[in-house]
Amino acid sequence: MAIEGRDETNAGRIRLGMVGGGEGAFIGGVHRMAARLDDKFQLLAGALSSTPDKAARSAAALGLDPARSYGSYEEMASAEKARPDGIEAVAIVTPNHMHFPVAKTFLEAGFHVICDKPMTTTLAEARDLAAIAKRSGKVFVLTHNYTGYPMIRQARTMVADGELGKIRMVVAEYAQDWLAERAEDTGSKQAGWRVDPAKAGAGGAIGDIGTHAHNLACYVTGLKVEKLSADLSTFVPGRQLDDNASMLLRFENGAKGMLWASQVAVGNENGLTLRIYGEKGGLDWCQEEPNKLWFTPLGEPKRLLTRNGAGATAPSTSVSRIPAGHPEGYLEGFATIYAEAAALIRAATEGREPPAGLALPTIEDGIDGLAFIEACVKSSKEDGAWVSL
Amino acid sequence: MAIEGRDETNAGRIRLGMVGGGEGAFIGGVHRMAARLDDKFQLLAGALSSTPDKAARSAAALGLDPARSYGSYEEMASAEKARPDGIEAVAIVTPNHMHFPVAKTFLEAGFHVICDKPMTTTLAEARDLAAIAKRSGKVFVLTHNYTGYPMIRQARTMVADGELGKIRMVVAEYAQDWLAERAEDTGSKQAGWRVDPAKAGAGGAIGDIGTHAHNLACYVTGLKVEKLSADLSTFVPGRQLDDNASMLLRFENGAKGMLWASQVAVGNENGLTLRIYGEKGGLDWCQEEPNKLWFTPLGEPKRLLTRNGAGATAPSTSVSRIPAGHPEGYLEGFATIYAEAAALIRAATEGREPPAGLALPTIEDGIDGLAFIEACVKSSKEDGAWVSL
Amino acid sequence: MAIEGRDETNAGRIRLGMVGGGEGAFIGGVHRMAARLDDKFQLLAGALSSTPDKAARSAAALGLDPARSYGSYEEMASAEKARPDGIEAVAIVTPNHMHFPVAKTFLEAGFHVICDKPMTTTLAEARDLAAIAKRSGKVFVLTHNYTGYPMIRQARTMVADGELGKIRMVVAEYAQDWLAERAEDTGSKQAGWRVDPAKAGAGGAIGDIGTHAHNLACYVTGLKVEKLSADLSTFVPGRQLDDNASMLLRFENGAKGMLWASQVAVGNENGLTLRIYGEKGGLDWCQEEPNKLWFTPLGEPKRLLTRNGAGATAPSTSVSRIPAGHPEGYLEGFATIYAEAAALIRAATEGREPPAGLALPTIEDGIDGLAFIEACVKSSKEDGAWVSL
Amino acid sequence: MAIEGRDETNAGRIRLGMVGGGEGAFIGGVHRMAARLDDKFQLLAGALSSTPDKAARSAAALGLDPARSYGSYEEMASAEKARPDGIEAVAIVTPNHMHFPVAKTFLEAGFHVICDKPMTTTLAEARDLAAIAKRSGKVFVLTHNYTGYPMIRQARTMVADGELGKIRMVVAEYAQDWLAERAEDTGSKQAGWRVDPAKAGAGGAIGDIGTHAHNLACYVTGLKVEKLSADLSTFVPGRQLDDNASMLLRFENGAKGMLWASQVAVGNENGLTLRIYGEKGGLDWCQEEPNKLWFTPLGEPKRLLTRNGAGATAPSTSVSRIPAGHPEGYLEGFATIYAEAAALIRAATEGREPPAGLALPTIEDGIDGLAFIEACVKSSKEDGAWVSL
Repeated sequence: MAIEGRDETNAGRIRLGMVGGGEGAFIGGVHRMAARLDDKFQLLAGALSSTPDKAARSAAALGLDPARSYGSYEEMASAEKARPDGIEAVAIVTPNHMHFPVAKTFLEAGFHVICDKPMTTTLAEARDLAAIAKRSGKVFVLTHNYTGYPMIRQARTMVADGELGKIRMVVAEYAQDWLAERAEDTGSKQAGWRVDPAKAGAGGAIGDIGTHAHNLACYVTGLKVEKLSADLSTFVPGRQLDDNASMLLRFENGAKGMLWASQVAVGNENGLTLRIYGEKGGLDWCQEEPNKLWFTPLGEPKRLLTRNGAGATAPSTSVSRIPAGHPEGYLEGFATIYAEAAALIRAATEGREPPAGLALPTIEDGIDGLAFIEACVKSSKEDGAWVSL
Repeated sequence: MAIEGRDETNAGRIRLGMVGGGEGAFIGGVHRMAARLDDKFQLLAGALSSTPDKAARSAAALGLDPARSYGSYEEMASAEKARPDGIEAVAIVTPNHMHFPVAKTFLEAGFHVICDKPMTTTLAEARDLAAIAKRSGKVFVLTHNYTGYPMIRQARTMVADGELGKIRMVVAEYAQDWLAERAEDTGSKQAGWRVDPAKAGAGGAIGDIGTHAHNLACYVTGLKVEKLSADLSTFVPGRQLDDNASMLLRFENGAKGMLWASQVAVGNENGLTLRIYGEKGGLDWCQEEPNKLWFTPLGEPKRLLTRNGAGATAPSTSVSRIPAGHPEGYLEGFATIYAEAAALIRAATEGREPPAGLALPTIEDGIDGLAFIEACVKSSKEDGAWVSL
Repeated sequence: MAIEGRDETNAGRIRLGMVGGGEGAFIGGVHRMAARLDDKFQLLAGALSSTPDKAARSAAALGLDPARSYGSYEEMASAEKARPDGIEAVAIVTPNHMHFPVAKTFLEAGFHVICDKPMTTTLAEARDLAAIAKRSGKVFVLTHNYTGYPMIRQARTMVADGELGKIRMVVAEYAQDWLAERAEDTGSKQAGWRVDPAKAGAGGAIGDIGTHAHNLACYVTGLKVEKLSADLSTFVPGRQLDDNASMLLRFENGAKGMLWASQVAVGNENGLTLRIYGEKGGLDWCQEEPNKLWFTPLGEPKRLLTRNGAGATAPSTSVSRIPAGHPEGYLEGFATIYAEAAALIRAATEGREPPAGLALPTIEDGIDGLAFIEACVKSSKEDGAWVSL
Repeated sequence: MAIEGRDETNAGRIRLGMVGGGEGAFIGGVHRMAARLDDKFQLLAGALSSTPDKAARSAAALGLDPARSYGSYEEMASAEKARPDGIEAVAIVTPNHMHFPVAKTFLEAGFHVICDKPMTTTLAEARDLAAIAKRSGKVFVLTHNYTGYPMIRQARTMVADGELGKIRMVVAEYAQDWLAERAEDTGSKQAGWRVDPAKAGAGGAIGDIGTHAHNLACYVTGLKVEKLSADLSTFVPGRQLDDNASMLLRFENGAKGMLWASQVAVGNENGLTLRIYGEKGGLDWCQEEPNKLWFTPLGEPKRLLTRNGAGATAPSTSVSRIPAGHPEGYLEGFATIYAEAAALIRAATEGREPPAGLALPTIEDGIDGLAFIEACVKSSKEDGAWVSL
C-alpha cells in the first residue's frame, strides 16, 4: 500500500460524508485533515451539526455543495443513498451517545462507517453494533488513532516477534490536565459533553482517554485484559463522571499491569505513555514524542529506535511518509487509519481481499473498549473488586 | 485566517500545478501533502519528471488528468495558460539548478510560484529572479518550511517584542548523517543530485541544510548576518561539495553567532536547532521536537512553552491545528507555508491586501540564502576570511 | 548548619563504628563515603563481617586499628563502651534481618544508631525498636537516603507551603531490572540475601525499593497512606519473594495514588520517580536526574527548578554543596542524612535542641515502612483487598 | 586501584596542605570534599587566605591545628618542610595568578602539587612551571576535573579503540549564564577575580571554562588542536575580559571543530558538552547528566551507555563507586582526580611505578591550556586569523 496517492487500482478518491464536526468541534477537523492527507477521500456531504444554521455555515466553510448539507443524519443517509454519486462511507465524529444510532443507520443503509471512539456508550450497544456491522457486510473502522503511529506499529511487531520474550508487566498512562478546573463552566463545548453522562456514557476520563490507553496496551502486546481492579475518582466538585482513574490489570497470559487515566494531572497535556516489560526486553513510548521508541534488550544498552531511522522495520516504515528526523505527528498517525480504511473499503467495494499488512483497530476492539469502561465502573463501585472483562 | 478550510471569501481551492516531484523524489510528495492538508489547493497539472514515461506514471498515480501531465515545464506553462480552467499557481520541487528557469518561465507566463529552496544556484540568478517576480506582479513563495513551525513563530515574536532584550549570541545547527558514507553510489536519487555541483550549485551541506539554519536564525532574530568566516570540509572522499561546514557569524546589531551544518555527523537525523541569547533571556528550539520552545528569562527558572499550551501566544496558536500535547510535525509546518501562500494568492487574485499576520519567507530571504552560500564558499577559499553578505 | 566542615561548636568529628559493610557489600561503602564527605564523622571501629577473616581484611583495607575490628557486633558494643575513646554512634549496614538485634544492642548500650532501611523485618520488631529507642534517649536515624536530595527537600516544602493546593493524586515508582534473571544464582551477595525471606523479611521488591517509593511519597506530600490494594508478583521462577509489585493507594486526605516497584523491568536502572498532582499544580522528579524538579503551576508553563539554580529555595540550597549545573548525586544526598545525623547527635550529646531545619526520616517512618510491607503482603494474599496501614 | 579506601600498600592517608580556599571561596571546598571522599588524604595544614583573620577562622572551621594555619604560603612551605609530620602534598586553589608562584615554591621545597586550572596565567609561566616540576621530581597534578567523569573515560577509550573511526568533527561547548549581568558588582568574590585580568590572566570565559572544553575535546579524542580562529566578545559593558567566545578549530589529524564558551548564555548553568563524530560513529556527552554517554554506530540505532550500566567498560567502571542508576556527580569526578593523584604520589614516595590505568591530566595539558588561551586572544585581536597552538 502506498501511503500517499491513490489505491493500486487508481480507483479515485472515496466519496465521504461526515456526521458531526461542525463549528466548535475538535475531532471533526482532525478526521477531515486525516482523510485529506493521503488523498484517498473526498468529503462531499455532511450533517455537521444538529443545529441547522450551524450545519449550513459549517458546510459552507468547508466548501460542500449546500444541497448535500443535511439537517439530520437520517436525512443524509436516505438522500445520499438515493444519489448515483452518493457517498460511499461516513465518518462519525459526534459526541459518544450518537455513535450507535448514527452508525446503525448508515450501516443498515449500506454505507461503510468510520467511527470515533468509544464505539458506543454501553457494552450492550457495542455488541449490537458489531452484529449489525457483520450483517451489513460493510467496513467498520474505529479510530483508535494512536494505533496509527509508526513506532506503535513497530512495537507491536517486536512484541509479536518475541523480541521482549513473554510479557510480564505493562504500564499504561494517559494524563491530561485540561479538566483540572471546571472547564465545563467556561462554555467549552469539548468539556461540556465529556462530563455529561447522557452524552459521554458511564465513563469520564476512563471513556475519553482511558480507553485509548487500554486499547494501546492490548494492541501492542497482543494480550487482552482478563480482569481489572479500578479506583475511579471525581476530584473536581460537582462533576458526575470520573476525572481520574487508577487501576491494576491482569492480562490473559499472566502479565500484570497498571493503568492511570487522569484529566486533572496538572502539567500533562496528552501524556499517553506505554511501557512494556518482558523476560527479554523492555519498551517505552510516549505519544508526545511519537517518533521515538526506546528499546532495551536484557543486559544491553538502551537503544533509541526512530521512525524511518536505523532499526526501523517495515511495520513502521510502511506507514511513514517522510524521512527520519522530520517529525510526523498526531495527524499523520490519524491519517494512517484513514489510509488503511480506504484500502479496506476499496477491497470491499471490489470484492477482493484487502492488502496484507493492515493493522487497523477492529470492531472487536470497540467491544473491548466498552467492556473496559463497564468493568472500571463496576469494580470501582465494588471498592476495587476484580472484575472480568 | 482559518488554517483549515477555505479562504474567508470561500473562493474555492487554488488550482495548482507541479514541476518535479515524480517517482523517487522526496520533496514533491511533501509539497503535495502540505498543499492538501488545509484544503486550499487542488493539484491539477504536472511536469513531474523530465523523463516522459516517469512523468506519465507519476501523474497517473496521483490521479491527474493524463491530458494535464506534461513532458516539459515549458509545455505545461503554455498549455495551462491557454486553458480557461488552467492552473493559477505552480509548485517547483526540482533539484536546485532548475528552480531559476522554471520559476522565470511561470512568473513570466503569469502564474504564481511556490518554489523550494535554495531559490537558485547563484546569487546573480537570485537577484534576477527577484526582479522578474517584481515585474510579474505575481506571488512568489519560498518554502523555507521550518518558518512554518508554530513555536518558531512564537520565538520570532518574543524576540521582536523584546522578551530577550538585545540579542548577543546565536547558535544555529543543522546536523544530519545520511551522507556519512557515499550514499550517492547506492542509487539514491536524493543523494545523487545533492552532491553534484551542476545540479545543487556551489553549496553541498551549506546549500541543502545550512541555508535553512541561516534562514531560521535570521527569521527568528530579525537580524541579518553581516559577515561570516567559514570553514567548509569535504570529509567523504571523492565528493566535490562540502559535507560539513562550520562558521562564525557577525550580525548587524553586533551579535555574534556560530553555525554548523553537517551531513556526516553520525547519530543526527535532522538536528536543526536554534539557540538565541539576549541580555534578558534565552531561547532553545529543536526541529525534532518542534512543539517545544524552551525559554529562560534572566534569573528565573527555565520554562517549557508548548504549541497551544500554557504560554503559547497568537503567533503560534494561529498556525496550530490541534490541541497541545498532540504533536504537530514537519508536514503541518510545511502546510502552514501553503496555507499562507493561499492567502497571498487569493488576495493577489482579488486585488486586495493580504490578511494581517502572515509571516512567510520572502524572495528577499531567497537572495539572502544565495548570498550566504556564496559568502561561505568565498570565505572558505580564503581560509576563513570574513566575507560580507 | 554548614554542610561542609565541623559543627558550629567545632566539637570535632563524631566517633563512628560500623556493623556490616565488609568485602562484597554495597551499602557499607556508601555509608562510609557519605559519612566522610562533610567531615563530621570518623570511622574507628567495625564488626564488618560475621566471617572473622573477612572482617579483619575489610578493617585493614579501611585502615582501622586492628584492635577495633571485632568478630561480632555484641563484642564491639561492649568493648567500645568500655573504651574512654570509644565510638559514639554506630552505622548498621547489614542485611535486613540483623537491623533489629544490632540496633537494640547498641541503643541499649548507649550508642546513637544510624540504620539502613527497612528498619526491621516485621512491624512488631519495628514497634519494639521504637520503644527501645525512646527508652534509650539516643538518636536513631533511618537512612531513607532519597530524602536527602535537595530537590526532594524543595518539593516537600512547596507542598507544605500550599503551592500545589490540596493533593489529589500521587504516582510513585521504583523500577529496576537487575533481578530480571536469577542474579541470585551468579554468586551476587547483593542478590542473594534480598531474595531470601530469612534475611530480607516478607518483602522482596516492596521491601527493598517499594519502601523507598512509599517513604518518599509520604515524605514529600506530608500525607500518610491510609490503605492500599496490592498485587505482588514473582515473575522469576523459583523465587520466594515478590519481584514486581503494583498497588493502588488511598491517602488520609482523600488523595489517591499508585505505586509500582519492580526489579524485573528491563531497561530501568534505579528509576525512582515521584509525581504529585494537586489542585493548583504538579511536580515531577526522577532520582536518576536528581538536580531537576519540574513544577507546573495550573495554567502556566512547566518550569524546570534546579538545585541551587533560579527558583531554588532554602530547603534545597541549604543542603547543596556546589553551584547549579554541577550535578550532585546519590552520595551527596546520602551524605546529607549523615550531616543531619551529626547535628542531631551533637545536640543530644550536648543536651541542647538540634538546629532548626533538619528534615531527617524518623523512627516513625521506619514503622510506617514495615506497616507498608505487611499491608502489601496481606492485601496481595487477599487478592487485592484494601488493607489499612 | 580501589577507589575507596587506602592504597594497596595501605600506607595511610597522604598528608595534605591547602593554599587558598578560605571563607567565600568555591573551589577550595570542592577540593576538600574530593580529597576526603575516597579517604586517601587528610588535610592538616593551610594558608587558606591572604587575609590572616580570615585564614585563621577558616582553619578553625575546618578543624585544623591552629599552629598549622599559616599567614602565607611561603611560611607554610618552610614550616611544613621542617616538621617531621609535615604535609606531603599541597592543593593550590587560589585565583589563577597565584598558581605559578605557589606551585613553584612548593615544588622547589619538595612537595607534590595538586593545582587548579588554568595552570598559570601565561604560556611562558606554564613552560617554566613544567621545567620546575620536571627538575623537582615531584608529582604535579592539574585538576581538569571533568576528565574524572567515568563516561568521559569510557568515551576516550572508545575513540582510542577506533570505535568511531577517524575523527572528522568535534563540537565542544561550555555555556553558563552567571555573568550575564555585572555579578562582579554584587560583591561576589567568584565573579570579582574572574573578570580581573590581573588575577585571571588574559582570558575571561576562555580561561575559566573554555580551557575545560578545549581540554576535554583533546582528552577524549587524543588529538591536539593545531590551530584556531577565534572571535572573543565582551558583551557586558565595562568588563575587560571576554565573556563569550566562539571559535573554529583544526585538529592535527585533519578533523575540524567548533568551540563555544560563554558566561552570558541565559538559561545555561554548566553546559559543558562534547560531541564527536568519526567515520564510523558519533558520541554525545553533557556534563549536567554525566552518567550518560550517547553512542551511535554508523547505520545503527543510538545507544545510551550508562555509568556502570550495560555497555560500560573498565575505563568507566574502574572509576565508579556506586551502581548504575544511582547518579555520581561533579564531586565524584573530582574525587577521582584526587584518588589517582594519591596513587601517583604513593608510587613516587615509594619509588615504584604508578599503577596502570591512571588517566590524569598532565602538566603538558596545562601548557596546552595556556597555549589555547593565548592563541584565542591573538587570533581574536587579528580578526580571526588562524593561529597555531
